Amino acid sequence: MVTRNQINTKDIIVGIVGLGLMGSSIAVALLIAGHPVVGIAPIDDEKERASLHIKELLLNAAKTGLLKRPLRDYLASLTISDDYHELDDCQLVLECVLEDIEVKKEIYRKITRIVERKTIIATNTSAIPISVLQQYVAHPENFIGIHWSEPAFVTRFMEITKGNETSENVATWIFDLAHCWGKEPTLLKKDIRGFITNRLMYSAYRETFSLVEKRQVSIEDIDKAFRYGVGSWITLMGIFGRMDFEGLKKYETVFNNIFPELTNSDSVPDIMQRMVDIQAKGIHNCHGLYDYTQAEAEQWDKAFASFNKEIYHLSLLYPSGKTPIELTKKSRELTKE
Amino acid sequence: MVTRNQINTKDIIVGIVGLGLMGSSIAVALLIAGHPVVGIAPIDDEKERASLHIKELLLNAAKTGLLKRPLRDYLASLTISDDYHELDDCQLVLECVLEDIEVKKEIYRKITRIVERKTIIATNTSAIPISVLQQYVAHPENFIGIHWSEPAFVTRFMEITKGNETSENVATWIFDLAHCWGKEPTLLKKDIRGFITNRLMYSAYRETFSLVEKRQVSIEDIDKAFRYGVGSWITLMGIFGRMDFEGLKKYETVFNNIFPELTNSDSVPDIMQRMVDIQAKGIHNCHGLYDYTQAEAEQWDKAFASFNKEIYHLSLLYPSGKTPIELTKKSRELTKE
Repeated sequence: MVTRNQINTKDIIVGIVGLGLMGSSIAVALLIAGHPVVGIAPIDDEKERASLHIKELLLNAAKTGLLKRPLRDYLASLTISDDYHELDDCQLVLECVLEDIEVKKEIYRKITRIVERKTIIATNTSAIPISVLQQYVAHPENFIGIHWSEPAFVTRFMEITKGNETSENVATWIFDLAHCWGKEPTLLKKDIRGFITNRLMYSAYRETFSLVEKRQVSIEDIDKAFRYGVGSWITLMGIFGRMDFEGLKKYETVFNNIFPELTNSDSVPDIMQRMVDIQAKGIHNCHGLYDYTQAEAEQWDKAFASFNKEIYHLSLLYPSGKTPIELTKKSRELTKE
Repeated sequence: MVTRNQINTKDIIVGIVGLGLMGSSIAVALLIAGHPVVGIAPIDDEKERASLHIKELLLNAAKTGLLKRPLRDYLASLTISDDYHELDDCQLVLECVLEDIEVKKEIYRKITRIVERKTIIATNTSAIPISVLQQYVAHPENFIGIHWSEPAFVTRFMEITKGNETSENVATWIFDLAHCWGKEPTLLKKDIRGFITNRLMYSAYRETFSLVEKRQVSIEDIDKAFRYGVGSWITLMGIFGRMDFEGLKKYETVFNNIFPELTNSDSVPDIMQRMVDIQAKGIHNCHGLYDYTQAEAEQWDKAFASFNKEIYHLSLLYPSGKTPIELTKKSRELTKE
């Protein structure tokens, strides 16, 4: 095992199986990080669509100033194929297909037939426990969860999750490698359901729905409170950092007062159930917790892409760790587009 | 009652009782919004300290480009006194003193003796129910909660909370006025404990401590997940907007899986209790959920001030409401320092 500083991404060929939106975005992240990338597009037509999409994302990344070399260099490091044999030299293969155990099982069978014993196989699942998926590969100790967030090349978030049989060495190596990808990864040593962020936010969702259903507060107001209240510190501090910043003691008092009043409901909130029953899909069909015109729905995608870039650059100014290091010349430069 | 567009802040004299850190910061926000401001400093020495502090904050605001007129104009609109009689022309008086019912009660008695019957009295409390405090003023229908967040002149967050006896007209007028202060206020029609943000985040805190205590994940990793995961969208979307963006259906599935696994604990988490027992005060005594050197603790304040300005400008690019309007020339200019 080499340490983080000794990792040379150009020597590590990474395979990606499944080149949908997420897989393509991950391919771009890995190309930017310097890896040769082999993308396997197992679905008809996916090869052409993925080629175009990856190129488009790379152009996008170039505009944001994320590319250090000419576009053609990155394209030269990319192979797209429908032939699993192209994976034979990969040291790491990422599976990014549907959240369907049967589909994944079949994909693992195909990957396992080709790659070497020591090749690490990772899944991007956010729904199925790693310990379950791990049973379908030949060498479960070399299987791990790597959960990316969209768009993969301009987010710093990454959840690495061990299954029961994942080896410590594999986890450490992936954790180190993730830093080479510009991530601030978390390492979960046990695959608890919902991993970290989901689980924590879902506890807040449970309470919000309860307040909305009791008509104590509106959906709009809750969103404002999160956007302008929580939003004003979360990217800087996280939640434990925030408690330290505020001085801790007052939280004890409020915990005592509030915990007994929080909802402990086990079931899907009525409002959510109703939405799902009437096939509301949010911006995807203009009908959700809010309603949208087609034009409004389309604006959200643009706004998200643009906001994401801005918050990414902003977060680079405040590096992770307990100390927010003062703005350095280097990070200042990174924020200039 | 006039509507939001008809409000002329220069005709509305606002009083502030209590010029500590928060009160001073609120004074600056109100001066920037165009109000004549009367600050009452009831504690010894507070008058001089507050004068200096407010001037310093105004200089700070000038540097951030928040002042449209020369500094002296703002200072000319400010009166600081220890004499409650100066409040006699105020249409609104904000109370910003200690979270202590007895202290507040005495202050309300003094304010009530001076101001007119129709003057609105507001409290900045985040801990005591409005319906309780309301009992100590002569005209409870004109009493309301206005909860600011620090630093008051560069945050958009504001929680307006009605007590049981607060009149609808008063709430509407304050809600409209808050927009003149550059806020994105929430209006809570019932004073539920913890108001909105506290309550919702405390449900997440309950779950985080539970995961940490089960040793399933580290404090550092949870903070990373919030900083880079939640942080990458919360200021843009809020949480309901996020569900619409993601398409809703998958939340139903996860709610079903996760809700029954969430903690329903009623009591203060052990880790927090231990911290409070050993007098850990986070950055305030360099010992908390993380440990800090003196220099590191000091850096946090600077980092927060700087981050807050940046996220304030960033959030102006994405106005509230269901549609994230595309960047306008005006908002673009606002982000330039």
